[in-house]
Amino acid sequence: MKVYVVGHMNPDTDSVCSAIVFSYLLNKWKEKDGLIKIDGEAVPVIQGEPNPETKFVLEKFGVEKPEIIEDVEGKTIALVDFSEKAQAPKNIEKAEIIAIVDHHKIGDITTPNPILFVNLPVGCTATVLKKLFDWSGVEIPKELAGLMLASILSDTVIFKSATTTELDKEAAKELAKIAGIENIEEFGIEVKAKLSAVDELSARDIILRDFKDFDMSGNKVGIGQIELVDLKLIEGRKEEILEELKKMKEEGGYHTVALMLTDIIKEGTELLVVTDDASVIEKAFGKKLEGNSVWLEGVMSRKKQVVPPLENAFSS
Amino acid sequence: MKVYVVGHMNPDTDSVCSAIVFSYLLNKWKEKDGLIKIDGEAVPVIQGEPNPETKFVLEKFGVEKPEIIEDVEGKTIALVDFSEKAQAPKNIEKAEIIAIVDHHKIGDITTPNPILFVNLPVGCTATVLKKLFDWSGVEIPKELAGLMLASILSDTVIFKSATTTELDKEAAKELAKIAGIENIEEFGIEVKAKLSAVDELSARDIILRDFKDFDMSGNKVGIGQIELVDLKLIEGRKEEILEELKKMKEEGGYHTVALMLTDIIKEGTELLVVTDDASVIEKAFGKKLEGNSVWLEGVMSRKKQVVPPLENAFSS
Repeated sequence: MKVYVVGHMNPDTDSVCSAIVFSYLLNKWKEKDGLIKIDGEAVPVIQGEPNPETKFVLEKFGVEKPEIIEDVEGKTIALVDFSEKAQAPKNIEKAEIIAIVDHHKIGDITTPNPILFVNLPVGCTATVLKKLFDWSGVEIPKELAGLMLASILSDTVIFKSATTTELDKEAAKELAKIAGIENIEEFGIEVKAKLSAVDELSARDIILRDFKDFDMSGNKVGIGQIELVDLKLIEGRKEEILEELKKMKEEGGYHTVALMLTDIIKEGTELLVVTDDASVIEKAFGKKLEGNSVWLEGVMSRKKQVVPPLENAFSS
Repeated sequence: MKVYVVGHMNPDTDSVCSAIVFSYLLNKWKEKDGLIKIDGEAVPVIQGEPNPETKFVLEKFGVEKPEIIEDVEGKTIALVDFSEKAQAPKNIEKAEIIAIVDHHKIGDITTPNPILFVNLPVGCTATVLKKLFDWSGVEIPKELAGLMLASILSDTVIFKSATTTELDKEAAKELAKIAGIENIEEFGIEVKAKLSAVDELSARDIILRDFKDFDMSGNKVGIGQIELVDLKLIEGRKEEILEELKKMKEEGGYHTVALMLTDIIKEGTELLVVTDDASVIEKAFGKKLEGNSVWLEGVMSRKKQVVPPLENAFSS
């Protein structure tokens, strides 16, 4: 009986790499000192095509792309990087879950029997897996150390995300040594740059990559975000993006449509805005729009730094 | 801000001792190498009066009984030995949960933020805590090693329960060394004997200590269980218990009322039965009742070894 190890929907680098890494560990645990013993062989699977960043990481360390799985009915599975039914493959309720390794809030997945569930409040599932290797005395192969390091750098935005902990930084240092990566920061930029490749995307694709609608005091507001290692990468596309934002505003009946161009190295965001009332933006961020743009120093998070001040500005 | 560490309702030895032990560990983690860092002081609490076994264990190792807590509204809490809302204190949904350590199936408790959740499929929460001490390099004080050893022996019925794993046995060995307990088995019998003390209990109390109702093909069936280190302890009470079972059968309109007298050392159960149809018992267990009693060799578990054959006998 195979054990399928799977990460969440819309897979990112951590969820793909952690499936590969946890499969390896489960197979090693069959030999000795395992926290659990599985019967068959563990194999990594994914819920969709990897993104360009993940593809780069797999190629760099010479690791094969896992097979895609959609339905897990009747299968034995282990979960990495999620514990919510909404992010699970089809028919999760008809699968047997034997383990969960994660770093998110505790989700709504329950089990009829005791299983291994290790969740730590750290920046990345790969950091939890690093601990599980250490705790069970299993050596980490060079190429898997590379995948784990890349996952940590990706999930923590090169240690800049507010979710980063000391455990993530320690794990990254040790993994870099095993993987033979000398400059962690440089490698992090190389990894994150892959999702900064916007040349082949249409303006609409750029806006919609990570776009959410909000209701702010009865006004429809849409905010997208794209993280880039350098805003120069998108400099020549701004006019085109603004035209597209205007179109989306008309089509969707928005009060305001905005796109956060977040510079993860400089740690700030250029906000492109088309709106019925520019004073709301000024009220929210204490700065005037220049044309359709405003630079917000230190702003990295839509959830924590953009939505709350905007909601306050609309409601006051 | 205090962190209250609490086990499940109707506390047993593992849930009380694990609350004490995890509190100690959380406080140690504030100093160094913690998997999580809490702000205030961790204090153990319990959801009800400890049973005689737990009281014996606390006294033996000179550890104070935790305070009782009923409502956790607005409090910061950590859970040990459960992850189900049904076993939680009042207003759990209005508390902030910062950690869960357990060895059961994964329950329905969710959190809005990432937390530490370590659940292993082993026989006892104390075994998981032993691992957490090892993994974070914290030394276990002698008296806490005693509590942990007693918890493992209690939960695994001195390693005889089907839930026992190699990890439990290893942990028990190492804990016995720290606690200065030379004969683990003997100590286990001493611990388990405390719940075998039936002299001060009425016949009704003995039957109801762990009693459950079942609907078997439309027939009301009640089955109690009491675990004893030696059936001699209850020998002189059997007639009285049978009279009480008959009374309960009348009062409750049962088809069958039974009490399992389980000998945890001999590993078998004497089943006392009053029933409308003795042939059902014969069909279920392949043995005839002698008077109102039948010896079932190797039977330890109501859930796995008594209820299923009885249900089959009723339905066929």
